[in-house]
Amino acid sequence: MKYRKAIIAVIGFCLLTEFGCGSSEEKSSDLVVYKNQEAPIEDRVRDLLGRMTLEEKVYQLNQVAFGKHMTANNIGGEMAKVSPLIGSIIYVNQDPNLRNDLQKKAMEKSRLGIPIIFANDIIHGFKTIYPISLAQACSWNPELVEQACAMAAKESKVSGIDWTFSPMVDVARDPRWGRVAEGYGEDPYTNAVFSKASVKGYQGNDLADENSIAACLKHYVGYGASEGGQDYIYTEISKQTLWDTYLPSFEAGVNAGAATVMSGFNDISGVPASANYYTLTEILKEKWEMDGFVVSDWNSVKQLINQGVAGSDKEATLKAINAGVDMDMADRLYLDHISDLVKENKVSINRVDDAVSRVLKLKFQLGLFDKPYVPIIRENNRYLLPEYISTAEKLAEETMVLLKNSDNILPLDNKVSSLAVLGPMAKNQEDLLGSWSAYGDAKDVESIYKAIESEFVQSKIFYAQGCDFDGNDTSGYTEAINVARKAEVVVVCLGEKKSWSGENASRSTISLPKIQEDLLLKLSELGKPIVLLLSNGRPLDLSRLAPLSDGIIEMWQPGVIGGKPVAGILSGRINPSGKLAMTFPFSTGQIPIYYNMRKKARPTSGMYQDITKEPLYGFTHGLSYSNFKYGDLKSSKTNLRKDENLIIEIPVTNASNVDGADVVHWFVSDPVCSISRPNKELKFFEKKSIKAGKTEVFEFHLNPIRDLSFVDSSGNKILESGEYHISVDNKKIVINLLEE
Amino acid sequence: MKYRKAIIAVIGFCLLTEFGCGSSEEKSSDLVVYKNQEAPIEDRVRDLLGRMTLEEKVYQLNQVAFGKHMTANNIGGEMAKVSPLIGSIIYVNQDPNLRNDLQKKAMEKSRLGIPIIFANDIIHGFKTIYPISLAQACSWNPELVEQACAMAAKESKVSGIDWTFSPMVDVARDPRWGRVAEGYGEDPYTNAVFSKASVKGYQGNDLADENSIAACLKHYVGYGASEGGQDYIYTEISKQTLWDTYLPSFEAGVNAGAATVMSGFNDISGVPASANYYTLTEILKEKWEMDGFVVSDWNSVKQLINQGVAGSDKEATLKAINAGVDMDMADRLYLDHISDLVKENKVSINRVDDAVSRVLKLKFQLGLFDKPYVPIIRENNRYLLPEYISTAEKLAEETMVLLKNSDNILPLDNKVSSLAVLGPMAKNQEDLLGSWSAYGDAKDVESIYKAIESEFVQSKIFYAQGCDFDGNDTSGYTEAINVARKAEVVVVCLGEKKSWSGENASRSTISLPKIQEDLLLKLSELGKPIVLLLSNGRPLDLSRLAPLSDGIIEMWQPGVIGGKPVAGILSGRINPSGKLAMTFPFSTGQIPIYYNMRKKARPTSGMYQDITKEPLYGFTHGLSYSNFKYGDLKSSKTNLRKDENLIIEIPVTNASNVDGADVVHWFVSDPVCSISRPNKELKFFEKKSIKAGKTEVFEFHLNPIRDLSFVDSSGNKILESGEYHISVDNKKIVINLLEE
Repeated sequence: MKYRKAIIAVIGFCLLTEFGCGSSEEKSSDLVVYKNQEAPIEDRVRDLLGRMTLEEKVYQLNQVAFGKHMTANNIGGEMAKVSPLIGSIIYVNQDPNLRNDLQKKAMEKSRLGIPIIFANDIIHGFKTIYPISLAQACSWNPELVEQACAMAAKESKVSGIDWTFSPMVDVARDPRWGRVAEGYGEDPYTNAVFSKASVKGYQGNDLADENSIAACLKHYVGYGASEGGQDYIYTEISKQTLWDTYLPSFEAGVNAGAATVMSGFNDISGVPASANYYTLTEILKEKWEMDGFVVSDWNSVKQLINQGVAGSDKEATLKAINAGVDMDMADRLYLDHISDLVKENKVSINRVDDAVSRVLKLKFQLGLFDKPYVPIIRENNRYLLPEYISTAEKLAEETMVLLKNSDNILPLDNKVSSLAVLGPMAKNQEDLLGSWSAYGDAKDVESIYKAIESEFVQSKIFYAQGCDFDGNDTSGYTEAINVARKAEVVVVCLGEKKSWSGENASRSTISLPKIQEDLLLKLSELGKPIVLLLSNGRPLDLSRLAPLSDGIIEMWQPGVIGGKPVAGILSGRINPSGKLAMTFPFSTGQIPIYYNMRKKARPTSGMYQDITKEPLYGFTHGLSYSNFKYGDLKSSKTNLRKDENLIIEIPVTNASNVDGADVVHWFVSDPVCSISRPNKELKFFEKKSIKAGKTEVFEFHLNPIRDLSFVDSSGNKILESGEYHISVDNKKIVINLLEE
Repeated sequence: MKYRKAIIAVIGFCLLTEFGCGSSEEKSSDLVVYKNQEAPIEDRVRDLLGRMTLEEKVYQLNQVAFGKHMTANNIGGEMAKVSPLIGSIIYVNQDPNLRNDLQKKAMEKSRLGIPIIFANDIIHGFKTIYPISLAQACSWNPELVEQACAMAAKESKVSGIDWTFSPMVDVARDPRWGRVAEGYGEDPYTNAVFSKASVKGYQGNDLADENSIAACLKHYVGYGASEGGQDYIYTEISKQTLWDTYLPSFEAGVNAGAATVMSGFNDISGVPASANYYTLTEILKEKWEMDGFVVSDWNSVKQLINQGVAGSDKEATLKAINAGVDMDMADRLYLDHISDLVKENKVSINRVDDAVSRVLKLKFQLGLFDKPYVPIIRENNRYLLPEYISTAEKLAEETMVLLKNSDNILPLDNKVSSLAVLGPMAKNQEDLLGSWSAYGDAKDVESIYKAIESEFVQSKIFYAQGCDFDGNDTSGYTEAINVARKAEVVVVCLGEKKSWSGENASRSTISLPKIQEDLLLKLSELGKPIVLLLSNGRPLDLSRLAPLSDGIIEMWQPGVIGGKPVAGILSGRINPSGKLAMTFPFSTGQIPIYYNMRKKARPTSGMYQDITKEPLYGFTHGLSYSNFKYGDLKSSKTNLRKDENLIIEIPVTNASNVDGADVVHWFVSDPVCSISRPNKELKFFEKKSIKAGKTEVFEFHLNPIRDLSFVDSSGNKILESGEYHISVDNKKIVINLLEE
């Protein structure tokens, strides 16, 4: 093998030098390195690139949508519109046959037979819809999330998808922003952990694996800082915050091997993310040595004109490619302008070759040259397989957060005589799917009502909708009240429609509409025990609802299997273990509020004079049916050299007769630092099952450079000696990091 | 004279070199340059500095409060606590005699007789309280503001105050922040204009003038970006935004000669404002060559510990002085630690000498060495002089903004038979003063009710309070409704207590409390014409109140004279001319919203899905009883070289039979720039009276480098060729700036 490779390399060299580059015809299959499955990918890329014309190269840098406007009658026409030279297709379809037809065109009707890479927005499942990402983070179970992503990859792959625009790892602190649903909450470290987990899930150990698809870290970078939580808008981000808040989740994903990165819509303090040389080239490609490629977000290259940094399509193209955007999504500007820009010496051929190489590399890595077609399996073997469903169920169970449980009203006695299941979410299926639910089908979703019926077989279950999600029609209140009157316990199912979160779904208030709040208010006047079940895509203002409810379960948007887990929590079959990955503010006017706010000049003043200074439910809040007691933190030593590691332990006792799982969150704070820093920062978390009456010891393996350092505004990691506080819950230990 | 100076210089040099520095005794009065009124200030400073011990120097860098805990009985004790060496006193008292006594101690009981500089928070008047600064900006009349500041300076000076901690020129876009009341609104240019006007007003042409006091630009810098509108909190500010949004108002004030600058409480993206070498030294003192001094805000040096950048008082001192804070307000840390830090070579004696020189320089400039005592004039000649009152009245008239005037309900017919004047603000005096109202006295304030009585002499005036500012007591509603029933027109006076805005007075919602909103709601059910008068310190959410009101006048917190102007607007005696300097959001959830937001990737999507995308009342909104019609913009040319100026004109016709004043705001936008920029930026404004039926031509003298350039993230002014759009109202003209 080694010998063969050497020969090929020499011949490749000759081809480039003696016979000219790019336009040379293939001499013999022996010399065609790029078709040789056994050659190293780098050689295959180099060989292929050397054969390509500028036009062919430019095509590789474009991604077009297919299927969006397709009907049964115009398939042929739509197919004809797709050039066999195109680099990538956003495949808005679930038929692998059609995808293979398109691929066939590329393989057979183009001179060099370069396969197309097919992409789609597989955000939290393809057909088996898992809980939204924000919910996933509340599981604090990255292994389970990795598993769900791996299953989503399988469902995607058999439908012809090679590449998903996921995960979104945008740290976000404004719950008005609809896309908080798509990310992993407010914390950089949490996002980093789930960034890695989801990349590993989608991509597996080898991109060439038949079950792997390429991941795409988005939206690079800082999109979560969208001003006022509106979408497609400016973001104010200092270099310091870029480094310490928004970049870590991307760096983690890159280190986990993410094949691609998507450049965002946002303007990073004057320089749009899709024209940002500093973030795209200097940081991503140079400092982090990311060797995958960057795709723009939908039309984000053309939108540089709206952002006022380009006067024409051509200038937008120039800015984007030179900043480091390798592939142009949707707007076709690269197709129209790159050739001219190269001829005018405004874009170097090296930049084009670099971009094309990155795209080709992924296609080789995915095995698309060697196996361009996806095998067609029977449709009922593709989707919603039992193992997918059970993973979706397990994940939903772990993501749900018991926010409130006054007087231990939950779990309900299994023998509760009757339950009134009320509210617009009670029989709803569609909205439990959440935003970006790909090919999820409402008919596959089990409603809360149905699940409660199945769970509480000994109880009478009454139902009334009460009201819609919004509007002014209170005509259903009376029925709801009458139904509630008959029941022992009132379960009120409120929340958000799935169109209220996700992309382009910002809301100026995080309160539920008045019609829903008033329904609960009316019901509360009956004096019956009230359990509030919430399904929504963002933290809500529950300041008026919480005092009226005895128990509150945040079930998020759980996907296809949400009813059964929440019913299980109601009954006690499931012991809730979810903890919030994003703070629930007391009210909209308290935004932004998050656990890792920077230190203040006056810690005890300056707060709003009209409300509490605390959020309603803070980061990591979440109750259990078990009673976990935390022992003291124990460290083998308190003085530490910078190159020493340390293990800190905390025993957690399940002082109850209910088995449960607890999540221990390890925070670090640095009382004195050369820059001001957050009050505390999450550095590690771990979830463990603890049997009733048993104690488990949780450990934090502290590595000073990883866990105690900070990053400055130029991205340098700095580790300063002195005191550090390590805390779990309200337990604290002081570590002294010694001078060198 | 020249000869004499040369001799002195030589002798001074000898003193320093031959006889040692600082501790040398005075040789003869001939040689004592610092006492020589005719010597240049620089020489006097140098001479004095050369005579000072380190201890004496350190004292000059400290400011302590006097009078805060003083009672008639403990004056002696309080006096005794003050060292005669102290640099400055925050004089919380209005008695000039006591001040002179303190000064006498410094002049006579200290070795070198260095006078103390007496400071106080004279924000919008001393005793004659003018409208709050946010209101002042709505006048768009900087000359009048300058005049008010000059009068405030006079009242202060005769009370023994040499220096005010004003103006606050913090651009602010979050109306939850209580201190928006103290600044000039959301726009950098507007803040810059009023920065200059107020500095000129306080300082006059010569600081030595008996009516001048030193100004202090605050809070340097970026305090207006306080996170979530809370106080004493972190601010996220990129270099780009620092330069284009927060620095210009300070630069304008420095250029206008502001004697001092106050370093803020905020943390500028990791580096607290009071430990920020970049902003304090590199920008302020080096780039702008500001030769006055920097004083910290109250305890802001010590608060570096809270902000986590200092581990001890001593380290806080070290960070502050080395960053460029010259004088330490209140916390006495400089007193305790600078000497040691100098001895340990952590702070250079040059830095101390530089700081002391800056302080001494101002004392010389103010003439404090030569006339250390303020002349005592009779108390009834000090305050509330007729010219002060008339200026306060004129300013209040011009600051009030007619927000709404459905069917021209206003002005009311003078012969209106009866008016019901209702609401908690109707007879209130105290709260019309606004925050930081120094020695303003509620008894000097004319209430709205009183003023309406005086204005509408032919009408019956009924009154009921209806409710308090907040709380749940609705028992007064009935009376208010009954009173309203009797009246032809209902005038409802709502608003905020003065303690609801200003420092440490942030509010999580910008709605008025429900009790006030509900009062208006109940009254509106009567179907009578309703005029809403609002007095408040921040933009409010009027989304529920506006539809219920036929007319709305924003009277702000007008100070001592507010009733008469608002009554005059009601009657038509005054034609309102105020325009908003800060946007009124539709609701709290729409914060932040301001006219000069950055351009978006998708201008027509991404807005909140549940409310309008527009604010309720935008920047520059304000109605008039005149009907101003705008002609087309006219420019002598449309192609311009970078070194050419241009005059653009717009004719404005008063197409009504009411004399009035209009403000023309000139905006520039740059459709394509190398960085993304705001949608438009205010570059000039002018207010002119226009007689009924007449036309006035407004002119904008455009200077490309001043008006078309932008500043990059390093503070470089850059002027790019190409198209620029100049607009007034909805009129636009395109200018083409030619290549060099």
